[in-house]
Amino acid sequence: MTLQQRQLVHQILRDAPFDLGGDVHVQRPLLERMLTAHPLPDDIRVSPGELGGVPVLVVDIEGVEPRGTLFHLHGGGFALGSARGAAGLAADLARRTGMRAVLVEYRLAPEHPHPAALHDVTAAYRALLDRTRLPVVVSGESAGGNLALELLVGGKAQGLAMPAAIVVLSPMTDLTVGGASFTGKADVDPNLTASAIRTRVDDYLGGTGTLATDPLVSPVFADLRGLPPLLVQAGSHEVLLDDATALATKAAADDVPVVLDITPGVPHVFQAFAALLDEGDAALGRVARFVDDNLAARADSAEHGSATPAAVAA
Amino acid sequence: MTLQQRQLVHQILRDAPFDLGGDVHVQRPLLERMLTAHPLPDDIRVSPGELGGVPVLVVDIEGVEPRGTLFHLHGGGFALGSARGAAGLAADLARRTGMRAVLVEYRLAPEHPHPAALHDVTAAYRALLDRTRLPVVVSGESAGGNLALELLVGGKAQGLAMPAAIVVLSPMTDLTVGGASFTGKADVDPNLTASAIRTRVDDYLGGTGTLATDPLVSPVFADLRGLPPLLVQAGSHEVLLDDATALATKAAADDVPVVLDITPGVPHVFQAFAALLDEGDAALGRVARFVDDNLAARADSAEHGSATPAAVAA
Repeated sequence: MTLQQRQLVHQILRDAPFDLGGDVHVQRPLLERMLTAHPLPDDIRVSPGELGGVPVLVVDIEGVEPRGTLFHLHGGGFALGSARGAAGLAADLARRTGMRAVLVEYRLAPEHPHPAALHDVTAAYRALLDRTRLPVVVSGESAGGNLALELLVGGKAQGLAMPAAIVVLSPMTDLTVGGASFTGKADVDPNLTASAIRTRVDDYLGGTGTLATDPLVSPVFADLRGLPPLLVQAGSHEVLLDDATALATKAAADDVPVVLDITPGVPHVFQAFAALLDEGDAALGRVARFVDDNLAARADSAEHGSATPAAVAA
Repeated sequence: MTLQQRQLVHQILRDAPFDLGGDVHVQRPLLERMLTAHPLPDDIRVSPGELGGVPVLVVDIEGVEPRGTLFHLHGGGFALGSARGAAGLAADLARRTGMRAVLVEYRLAPEHPHPAALHDVTAAYRALLDRTRLPVVVSGESAGGNLALELLVGGKAQGLAMPAAIVVLSPMTDLTVGGASFTGKADVDPNLTASAIRTRVDDYLGGTGTLATDPLVSPVFADLRGLPPLLVQAGSHEVLLDDATALATKAAADDVPVVLDITPGVPHVFQAFAALLDEGDAALGRVARFVDDNLAARADSAEHGSATPAAVAA
């Protein structure tokens, strides 16, 4: 069963005209069309909003009183993708976690290189914390996973309240593009290459004076102490696999509660194919459990008075 | 709450007279006394048995009809420890998973160096597969985690049926004792040192002609393809941390379904302190969930006819 599903997803990605490393003006609409090909479920309410002056999309599920906010950052190599493009995945996560999803329409490179996206994400996150007393979980896929980590690594230094948990799906964590999986998994990854990633990293960092080895943009080089519980999911058929394993290894060394969860034989952000792929459905189920566990743990520690007021407010 | 619990466990281990690297004749009874200081719960039934000519302990919970067998391998650096010493931890796992635990009394080094323990474990595992049609999960802690991996890496080459899952707690996976955590975590690990581990590896491999780089004894160097779903748990306050992260990284590269689950601030095999330590209790709960998930997945694939008869029999 699932072998056929995996082959189907692999073929869909191999055949798609989208090329992450191509011209952004051509690729942006192609990616958008691919990500919005299926309408959202009927009970999903998407409304535009703003947080801290940054445009966001708010995703609610009809009839569900959210128990918290999933602050989600879309992927697309810093240069492509949109809040609407990631709304399907975020809505699925919102449903499984009983939360509202907020997707940030951060500015894209190369028009707006680093740190424009980080500024947008940080401003929106701060505004969200000011507006809610319910728990916040930060999530992101691919470059959005990188921005989720940038937000917390950068924010920690400024005393920003940490979320209840952070969930990153196939994150970019090492912008030097140094992982052995860039070659080791080149043959099995249906749609990503080291070269495409390098093109987008150049868009993001080129001319900014920030090096790819900077711990702020490459969290594998950062001091991760003090980060909240971290879930890292990836597929074993992706060139970004080592970005996931290296992040988890660094987080473990830095005393972060971390779970690395690898699904074999599936590509980059395979969770977006949950409707077609049992492995994607199962992985999202484990995300929901991780969120449940950490919201419960936070409620316990708040009851015992050991959480800081700022942390409880977050 | 939990900080006090962690400090207590840390102090218990710091103060314990047991030294993993000490003379085996002195240390064996010390470790045994430490591990059996608390009586087993009243509803635990422990009975001696044998499998394939190898002595085992069978652990059942009164009134529970087991839905499978947890084939558990105790720790102790290949030279110490016993089935009875690990019965408390195995009983806890058996209760949470609804399984029977079978603990193998494999021969110990230095009297019986490699591959004596592997031969015992393999003979017992084969005999178990012959006797049961219920699912088998292989587990082990520390050196027992190493033997669990040796069993499957060695057995795979011989066509041995794989279990439904493998669970290793703070496993030894690189007998070259090469991990950066041997120095990086030396100050925070309450009871283990690189030197103690080296002493026990020498007992295990010395004079056998098998090198510590041999993939059979150091699974981080092995081809892990074909291994069943693998759960690796460790604490961030242990010198063996990198043995856990490196194993997960290699498993991911080799397309094994793998979850690495790191709990910060806790020592080697902290799950054995589940009665004192919330983190240990929570981690064992996640082991049970991992086992549940994989038994359910196996039942699904058996229904769909995609499991091999040998795998179903296991």
